[in-house]
Amino acid sequence: MSELDQVTLQQHQQWMRRAIALAQQGQYSTRPNPNVGCVIVKDGQLVGEGFHPKAGQPHAEVFAMRDAGEAARGATAYVTLEPCAHYGRTPPCAKGLVEAGVAQVVVACPDPNPLVAGKGVQILRDASIEVITGICEAEAHQLNLGFLKAMATGMPYVRLKVASSLDGRTAMASGESKWITGAMARQDVQHWRAISGAVITGIETVLADDCLLNVRQLDDDDDMRNVVQPKRIVLDRQGRLPLTAKILQQPETVMVMGPYRQELADLGVVQFEIQPLADLLAACVQQFQIYDVLVEAGATLSTAFLQEHLIDEMISYVAPTLLGQSARAMFNADFDRMAEQLRFKLKDVTQLGDDIRLRLIPSQETL
Amino acid sequence: MSELDQVTLQQHQQWMRRAIALAQQGQYSTRPNPNVGCVIVKDGQLVGEGFHPKAGQPHAEVFAMRDAGEAARGATAYVTLEPCAHYGRTPPCAKGLVEAGVAQVVVACPDPNPLVAGKGVQILRDASIEVITGICEAEAHQLNLGFLKAMATGMPYVRLKVASSLDGRTAMASGESKWITGAMARQDVQHWRAISGAVITGIETVLADDCLLNVRQLDDDDDMRNVVQPKRIVLDRQGRLPLTAKILQQPETVMVMGPYRQELADLGVVQFEIQPLADLLAACVQQFQIYDVLVEAGATLSTAFLQEHLIDEMISYVAPTLLGQSARAMFNADFDRMAEQLRFKLKDVTQLGDDIRLRLIPSQETL
Repeated sequence: MSELDQVTLQQHQQWMRRAIALAQQGQYSTRPNPNVGCVIVKDGQLVGEGFHPKAGQPHAEVFAMRDAGEAARGATAYVTLEPCAHYGRTPPCAKGLVEAGVAQVVVACPDPNPLVAGKGVQILRDASIEVITGICEAEAHQLNLGFLKAMATGMPYVRLKVASSLDGRTAMASGESKWITGAMARQDVQHWRAISGAVITGIETVLADDCLLNVRQLDDDDDMRNVVQPKRIVLDRQGRLPLTAKILQQPETVMVMGPYRQELADLGVVQFEIQPLADLLAACVQQFQIYDVLVEAGATLSTAFLQEHLIDEMISYVAPTLLGQSARAMFNADFDRMAEQLRFKLKDVTQLGDDIRLRLIPSQETL
Repeated sequence: MSELDQVTLQQHQQWMRRAIALAQQGQYSTRPNPNVGCVIVKDGQLVGEGFHPKAGQPHAEVFAMRDAGEAARGATAYVTLEPCAHYGRTPPCAKGLVEAGVAQVVVACPDPNPLVAGKGVQILRDASIEVITGICEAEAHQLNLGFLKAMATGMPYVRLKVASSLDGRTAMASGESKWITGAMARQDVQHWRAISGAVITGIETVLADDCLLNVRQLDDDDDMRNVVQPKRIVLDRQGRLPLTAKILQQPETVMVMGPYRQELADLGVVQFEIQPLADLLAACVQQFQIYDVLVEAGATLSTAFLQEHLIDEMISYVAPTLLGQSARAMFNADFDRMAEQLRFKLKDVTQLGDDIRLRLIPSQETL
């Protein structure tokens, strides 16, 4: 990096941002594979581009090389993730780039997958291809928060969705709770489900709302057309999930943590033994390639995930209303001292109609 | 307005926005007078401008006419508020504009003051000056929310400041409450105090925090240099305010609602009889020319102002932290049904460091 002059660096960043934008086109459809984009540039001109659209289909580099054809020879390839070095469903992309005769490869993120880990870059360098890494790495990292975390640590990236009033309430004491947030906020939740490998909820939420927790596909929503629906994981320690629950209308995408039930097995529902939340999350990664988890649950389960420090990001919708002190609290821990508080760093705030959405990263700082 | 072509309208708006920006320069210093700006334009060129800086000093039009000199003859004057028609501390500005020989006057807001109400415009029209009204009226109205409301209705514009955690808490059960919001949010509060004629608080807040509730003037803050400090009104129904309270170090700006106490009168503290909050607010306008009120109080008093529908705007600072269900609620009404909730329209949301600030307008809508 130190050898790059400022103009060259800016050109690299510009092309890499195009590759990142391409990668995003696969955000709802590549799971469990990562989102990757690739742009091939020769003499300052775009000659090929592509992105990975779906597991089982070619990688981004393959689409871009096909698009470039002979023009790839002597060109620079921009890839948002280190090209793969292993034979999986497709031959290794690093070899493909060598064969296509590119002169230079610019990479945003190294691949933390132990099967790849620097090997892709090594194949390129061994073939005398110049490799530059780390261009727009932070932006490209955001494309694959779950995949990258899972490959590096064995744990998924866990988002907690909460929706509350200004005074931190989610429902009246009676349970009445309709329409705290508006249509735009409720639609926004679909995005977070659609990028997740699984939505985790508690049995109380299923019993109270008879919810589906899948991605609602609107007819005119092209983005979501190819969505890979998330699994729905129900935490049901006492085996109370009724077979008539709406969520069981598509049993092949339902998973339950609870006592073993033959009738669920008969429906094709995957069942987890009762285990600590951290172990369940690890099992999601290791057994099911679930790298992004969205927790949509009541206060008790949400509080448990937060207090066990299992949340990477909280997506908090706040509606401009006051429900009063008898209403249900969004967070039901009991703290005596300010020092116990759970603080966050504010990642961003967005207005959604009359509501706002905060993206918050749990902070380990003490005050 | 219908006769103005689009180009002329845009020119008028452009000059009026300049007058509005000028008016804002007096935002902390004109009380109880309104903020007014004036721009004089001839043949498309700015020839004079001014704003009202302080009660007792000349009005905006006078500064602008002085600035323009002879060039005012045949020019267009843009004024954010209808020129005054009465002899107050200064001669009427409408007469001044006639004498200066301007050909046209463009006005943003009509003056709702019964002493003026259309008379300024009438004086100009009687002198064959063309008058256009309503240019950028909504923007100019924001300059003087308190003054305009008070003149029209006899009641002040009341802002309620609240600061809470994400889960709607203001302090631990013990009262421990330091540092929920950060430095930027706390500094932002100074702005709202500085545009207010009075800050209202409850005796519990004074006893707990021994607060001053005045505008902290930083050495390097030119904006606040000429601030007219707000009155501090303490609601103290049982006469508990200690004579040693810090707030009494400047007793001439303290007002107390409570049982009459001779020792407060001796200090020069103005005392209100115990009366309903609505009557107290009306008295602020009618007896003390207090047009903008900021309520900075605990949950009980804040809730009372909200439930009595006395709040025009809520300024809500939200800190990215969770304090838990034992912590003190920001809003302590008890509602059984969603239909009772207090809803708001979101005016804007701003990030202040790690905190956010919401400006919220109480909504009369039912759901």
